[in-house]
Amino acid sequence: MAITLYELAGRDASRPFSPHCWKVRLALRHKGLDFETATAGFTEIPGLEGGFSKTVPILKDGDTLVADSFAIAEYLETAYPDRPTLFGGEGGHALSRFVESWTQRVIHPALARFAALDIHDGLSEPDQAYFRSSREKAFGTSLETFVADRAERVEPFLKSLEPLRAIVGKQAFLGGESPLFADYIVFGAFQWARVSSPFRFLPANDPVTAWFERCLALHGGEGKKVPAAA
Amino acid sequence: MAITLYELAGRDASRPFSPHCWKVRLALRHKGLDFETATAGFTEIPGLEGGFSKTVPILKDGDTLVADSFAIAEYLETAYPDRPTLFGGEGGHALSRFVESWTQRVIHPALARFAALDIHDGLSEPDQAYFRSSREKAFGTSLETFVADRAERVEPFLKSLEPLRAIVGKQAFLGGESPLFADYIVFGAFQWARVSSPFRFLPANDPVTAWFERCLALHGGEGKKVPAAA
Repeated sequence: MAITLYELAGRDASRPFSPHCWKVRLALRHKGLDFETATAGFTEIPGLEGGFSKTVPILKDGDTLVADSFAIAEYLETAYPDRPTLFGGEGGHALSRFVESWTQRVIHPALARFAALDIHDGLSEPDQAYFRSSREKAFGTSLETFVADRAERVEPFLKSLEPLRAIVGKQAFLGGESPLFADYIVFGAFQWARVSSPFRFLPANDPVTAWFERCLALHGGEGKKVPAAA
Repeated sequence: MAITLYELAGRDASRPFSPHCWKVRLALRHKGLDFETATAGFTEIPGLEGGFSKTVPILKDGDTLVADSFAIAEYLETAYPDRPTLFGGEGGHALSRFVESWTQRVIHPALARFAALDIHDGLSEPDQAYFRSSREKAFGTSLETFVADRAERVEPFLKSLEPLRAIVGKQAFLGGESPLFADYIVFGAFQWARVSSPFRFLPANDPVTAWFERCLALHGGEGKKVPAAA
């Protein structure tokens, strides 16, 4: 069966940047599955697969459609049980939700304050209008003001990574010697920033940086196929 | 074989308060194991079991001695594989370390600023001297100053619980419908504060409070056997 992953992209379709789509890309590689990708801008998503989902990723596997990155990982784990596991059992499945919760509440909001304007600048014109309007409403300020003090936000952000740093400074991945979907959850966030914004905030000597580089190298360097924003 | 758990206590031996010892207590109940407890003050720990460990918990199971709460959980999971699982497989084992890392770096330091002086006040005299000296050196200030602004620290602390709150507001435990060792890791921190300090900081309507109450009720109300500090 052919697998298609619908991803989010801006003007350059070769640079998908959604954190949630990157989680699924690595999950598919982790399972050793072949897949094609197709990209859509924010305002094109409602037109995908007959309006199946308001958000990407959307995975199409034969006749099956699944949206939401965590739901897609669950689908892959169930549909391809003989391939390498994404969760490492029921406990790993449950606790991956905590990693997701921490990532979305600690890392994502911080990275948005680094990259929001750069994300905007890379979008197609219709998407720029949508993005500016929806995000400025959500943030309560202009995109320009939202990211204006990003340099000062780096230090507290790096401090907030300590729970991750303490683990990946002692072992290769959150999953231990090899990665689990939990690693891809956190990786997706940093990859989102790497692909969409030239703003650099991870120090070279930070164990989190070394872990991120290990993630970028996984599965034939899947994450490196898209160069960092310059 | 007889199992003994060595716990930390102050002047009142019926009120063990170490977060790490509470994790093990619930882990033993989770496994359905009978055990006896013995308490020691901070300065008595080096005299336990021939100086086996500088810290409690120490678990003695027949001729086997194990120290460190996570190592004890691993020991129990291996030694009693037919009892209910603490990790739910290898993935849960690995990601429990992330829950531990988050708990020790986000929750413990915050609760120390609520409870440090109250902990001191409940200790035996030799332990008070040890505790004040070692903690004031670590904190870089007097215990009194360390906790002086605790009322103002409640709101940011509650905000920092959002990754936990988002999960336990939707499901009973971090482990899903039933608890895993990951729940006991976080529970231990809140139980430490509950037993050692009358300072209350969890709002009644907080999903974290409801989760903590569920943990207190587990295994025949093990956690409630010690009343909250008054």
